Amino acid sequence: MKKLELRLSGFGGQGLITAGIILAEAAILDGKNAVQSQSYGPEARGGASKAEVIISSEEIDYPKVGQADLCLAMSQQACDKYAGNTQPNGVLVLDSGYVKNPPEFSGKMYSVPITEIATSEVGRNIVANIVALGVIAGVTNVVTRESLETAVLDRVPPHTKDLNKKALAAGYESAKNLLQREGE
Amino acid sequence: MKKLELRLSGFGGQGLITAGIILAEAAILDGKNAVQSQSYGPEARGGASKAEVIISSEEIDYPKVGQADLCLAMSQQACDKYAGNTQPNGVLVLDSGYVKNPPEFSGKMYSVPITEIATSEVGRNIVANIVALGVIAGVTNVVTRESLETAVLDRVPPHTKDLNKKALAAGYESAKNLLQREGE
Repeated sequence: MKKLELRLSGFGGQGLITAGIILAEAAILDGKNAVQSQSYGPEARGGASKAEVIISSEEIDYPKVGQADLCLAMSQQACDKYAGNTQPNGVLVLDSGYVKNPPEFSGKMYSVPITEIATSEVGRNIVANIVALGVIAGVTNVVTRESLETAVLDRVPPHTKDLNKKALAAGYESAKNLLQREGE
Repeated sequence: MKKLELRLSGFGGQGLITAGIILAEAAILDGKNAVQSQSYGPEARGGASKAEVIISSEEIDYPKVGQADLCLAMSQQACDKYAGNTQPNGVLVLDSGYVKNPPEFSGKMYSVPITEIATSEVGRNIVANIVALGVIAGVTNVVTRESLETAVLDRVPPHTKDLNKKALAAGYESAKNLLQREGE
């Protein structure tokens, strides 16, 4: 892949901006270029949140994401708004705990209980964003696992490193299961 | 002001991305629109860091900052690289502890011992980014003080709220002194 555009969407407090920054920083560790951005409009005042990341092996001229190659939606509202703006052969990752009405989609769609995994396997719903990163990287290989783990541990508060490491592993595990199920 | 473009530059670990996010979130609280972005290229691997923010009362079509209206430089390297890409009648804010060779500049240039203020008045150099936000908002009024304080306190870890509040106040105080000196 030469260039990959990702959109991470949900609601405020889910840590999507942090997830976007971590993903961009992991890409840098992989020797790629990256741009991470968020646009805030009136919807931000309604509690919606969206972060975008472009990762490329070449220089990135235009920093705005159009039709994303991958869209993460961690709320029904975000899914309704952004899922349609994804490449027809792209990837949708949905938090099945929040997105009860998934859209029709021609690409690959993965419904994963992201927040539930964070709560049940790590004991903290606040690491749902890191679980999501594990899922995304696990199904796409957009960044290497080593770089992603380094980027996560560099960015989170020191006393939460273990929790976040666990969250990332849980996300990867869940991705592995999804891919295995697909292969069957 | 209809639209304002800001560039926050320095080195990794100074919290410039967080500062950019806080500034954008303060703008939203003020009822404006905002885009916050960072591009990572090879220079990121050399330790440089740069965050950009566009704040506008109207919708923001193009998210990339060209000639900034305001440039913060918290390292000599960042100053050498980015100060020249500032509007001729714009504003330069320099951390005088790091930028020993300020450039020629036709606009307004403020040299402030930002990191030193963080260390001496708050006791923690890690809040230098928040001191910088106080200085920037104090000299430009790009966001209201009320919104900025709310955005800072929303974004920082709970146990650091007091430190960050103090850092912001120190930044504002320093801006007030600069403007007073200008007026004399």
